[in-house]
Amino acid sequence: MSLSGEDGINALLNPSSVAVIGATPRRDSIGNIITINLAKKYRGKLYLVNPRYTDINGIKAYPSIKEIGEPIDLAVIVVPAPLVPSVMREVSEAGTKAAIIISGGFSEVGEEGARLEEEVKKSAGKVRILGPNCIGVFNASTGLDTFFLPEERMGRPRPGPLALISQSGAVAGSILDWAARRNLGIGIAVNYGNKLDVTETDLMRFLALDPSVKVITMYMEGFKYPGEGRRFMEAAKEVSKRKPIIIYKAGRSRASKRAVASHTAALAGNYEIYSAAFKQAGLIESSSLRDMFDMAKALATQPLPRGRRVLILTDSGGMGVQATDSLEPLGLMVPELPETQRDRLRKILPPLAAVGNPIDLTGSATDEMYKSVLEEILPTDSVDMAMVIALMQLPGLTVNLANYIIEAKKYGKPVVAVSFGGNEFMARFNDALDKGGIPVYATPDRAAKALWALTEYAKVVGEIHE
Amino acid sequence: MSLSGEDGINALLNPSSVAVIGATPRRDSIGNIITINLAKKYRGKLYLVNPRYTDINGIKAYPSIKEIGEPIDLAVIVVPAPLVPSVMREVSEAGTKAAIIISGGFSEVGEEGARLEEEVKKSAGKVRILGPNCIGVFNASTGLDTFFLPEERMGRPRPGPLALISQSGAVAGSILDWAARRNLGIGIAVNYGNKLDVTETDLMRFLALDPSVKVITMYMEGFKYPGEGRRFMEAAKEVSKRKPIIIYKAGRSRASKRAVASHTAALAGNYEIYSAAFKQAGLIESSSLRDMFDMAKALATQPLPRGRRVLILTDSGGMGVQATDSLEPLGLMVPELPETQRDRLRKILPPLAAVGNPIDLTGSATDEMYKSVLEEILPTDSVDMAMVIALMQLPGLTVNLANYIIEAKKYGKPVVAVSFGGNEFMARFNDALDKGGIPVYATPDRAAKALWALTEYAKVVGEIHE
Repeated sequence: MSLSGEDGINALLNPSSVAVIGATPRRDSIGNIITINLAKKYRGKLYLVNPRYTDINGIKAYPSIKEIGEPIDLAVIVVPAPLVPSVMREVSEAGTKAAIIISGGFSEVGEEGARLEEEVKKSAGKVRILGPNCIGVFNASTGLDTFFLPEERMGRPRPGPLALISQSGAVAGSILDWAARRNLGIGIAVNYGNKLDVTETDLMRFLALDPSVKVITMYMEGFKYPGEGRRFMEAAKEVSKRKPIIIYKAGRSRASKRAVASHTAALAGNYEIYSAAFKQAGLIESSSLRDMFDMAKALATQPLPRGRRVLILTDSGGMGVQATDSLEPLGLMVPELPETQRDRLRKILPPLAAVGNPIDLTGSATDEMYKSVLEEILPTDSVDMAMVIALMQLPGLTVNLANYIIEAKKYGKPVVAVSFGGNEFMARFNDALDKGGIPVYATPDRAAKALWALTEYAKVVGEIHE
Repeated sequence: MSLSGEDGINALLNPSSVAVIGATPRRDSIGNIITINLAKKYRGKLYLVNPRYTDINGIKAYPSIKEIGEPIDLAVIVVPAPLVPSVMREVSEAGTKAAIIISGGFSEVGEEGARLEEEVKKSAGKVRILGPNCIGVFNASTGLDTFFLPEERMGRPRPGPLALISQSGAVAGSILDWAARRNLGIGIAVNYGNKLDVTETDLMRFLALDPSVKVITMYMEGFKYPGEGRRFMEAAKEVSKRKPIIIYKAGRSRASKRAVASHTAALAGNYEIYSAAFKQAGLIESSSLRDMFDMAKALATQPLPRGRRVLILTDSGGMGVQATDSLEPLGLMVPELPETQRDRLRKILPPLAAVGNPIDLTGSATDEMYKSVLEEILPTDSVDMAMVIALMQLPGLTVNLANYIIEAKKYGKPVVAVSFGGNEFMARFNDALDKGGIPVYATPDRAAKALWALTEYAKVVGEIHE
């Protein structure tokens, strides 16, 4: 795997020191929000640069990055576009490794902006550049955060095994806000803007080597430059062997190509061609933002299945039917269990329970019945993974059921859960599963899609053969 | 429309008086939970019947329904199955209009139970019967509630314009619990069990005439008896002209037919045949529980469109692209606006805004920009409905934006909203929209499906021609 430029990209995502160029005490300005967020959370060395101030919010301000007197890993640039070329020259001369240009007003606004973008490129020297016209980087572990939205508008997720690479800044911001509320761990998120230098391909290659990242998620509208698509697919083919990449490609239809052109100026292209190339490169496609993170949760926590056979264990026959409906069109199977196993289940379950698969414990379900069935069936060769459905409305179930489901991880097969409703028992049950590394979904169709993603990735790495 | 038996079904769903036969002070028993729930909430006259007590939880208990001394609208029967035939004889002799048999142990357990069910039928006389083997009726307005799950396990929704007819009791219970948490108004919910007498067709016909019900939602696994399907489709054809019916048919694949057989003993049948018949009868099909209520919210609050053209108004280009992607495969259109309108928009919007459709207000969006675009475009002949996307992460937006979107209802065209994230502003914005009668969805694909449902129903009633 090509690692050229790794040091520069490391400085973009995991800098030890940051200089904010264009830091300002002017309230609600972008430079101010970034300064406040970094001062509060960033764990490395922070420097502020603005020739108009000697002090900003109690932190010393330097007239230029060159005056700091030591090389900085990352410059975050928030000055108006026409000033960026000269600022970039100083950034380069100061020996800075990387820069994020937050400022807009470049190629996205027309020819004049494009000329300015070229000037920036010329004055950058060896500095690796993210942007311009982007919201930059969020790193939950180090507190690096250039997403210029105040905390009360955009919650920040806890550190976790998911990484997000997004072509849209607003989409990335809303995903982080959503993930924060749902306690979904997104450790790193990047929006790359006009791609003057660093592309989604560079970011993907770098995140492939970051041991804290288990799953890479990508929101993409299209490529812009000649050869980009080929380079991306080549890299994806290597990276997808190391860790799963889930991609949501927007811009699929005629009218949405127009929308993409006016949004990111990318070429949405022919979706069918994209989709076929993604598949060939080992990417897993999602069809909505929620779908993407439903699948990512499973890929980050579950082992890969060695086949396509699903055990459905439920306390509601209706939910079992819905699960079966959802699995089969995705190419997953719900096989009837062998007679010997059904016999054993008949002995340990109440008379009205269905033992075929779905195994329906009925409204008389107890925690112990779930435990018995999981212990009896999951280790056997009859199934490759399990979907455990527990409607916590039933009074026979307690929050402790979560522990039995979590224990079933010891069999080394994927286990996902379905829990639907709104009561407090359910919220505590879901929370316990989540903490125990069992992804939980509101409806069976979402859990089915998660199991499908595990199976697809098992094919990519050769655990299952097509 | 046939109204035969309407009085009996009215007594089932809206009784003025209820007798619980098998009421008991025994904690956590079904008879006890129903007694507690009715004593707390039911607004009609409540009587308890059990020969073993003279008093239950401080309420007088009668030895038999005949001893109450006046005819009762509804008997709720929770005695063991073998006792039900003789109890039913008394219910009939007392002049009771209707009965819900909660008790299980009938045709669902085998031949002996089926014989018992026949006996019940013979002893019922003119009494209309729901069940046996069901969880019965929840009526949010009158407090009639035989769903035998305690409040802390299953929340109860507020009164509202949606009705639910469910073949699965556990599915109905989890839907109510879910709806309660989401402040979704489900005014009436019915689970009909073994269908000894009253069927989903009877219930649908009756709810068609209930002015408090605006949308009927149905969860169905399959029919059981000869001729049932034909009668259902005939009734649906009439009812769907009066109000929308959304159906979620579970049991679609080979393995799920087996699951249905062991769950409700219904014949799941060939799904394609069901689906074609539903379409012909004017039913709108959903593909998950959430999908069903996403569509129901729109049908309960929005006027019908007179065409298929959607205005997309967004503060995020990426979300606009996703919306376009979702609408077009559903047969809805995102037409480019006429040049004259685009010109006017260019004058009132900032230079970087996209005015084609989607109209992208960009990260500089303000409440007033949304208001201006809605006023400028929605009343014109260029579009038939609107999807308004507002990412409340953007600092230029306030909760007051909800009022501008609600005001746009005055143009008589459907308006749905998309709001994604997790912050408090967003929660208040969503809440205001909800209270103002604008359905709000987390992602564009869900809002698209809601607009699709409005368009489908407009076809059913002839507002749009195929």
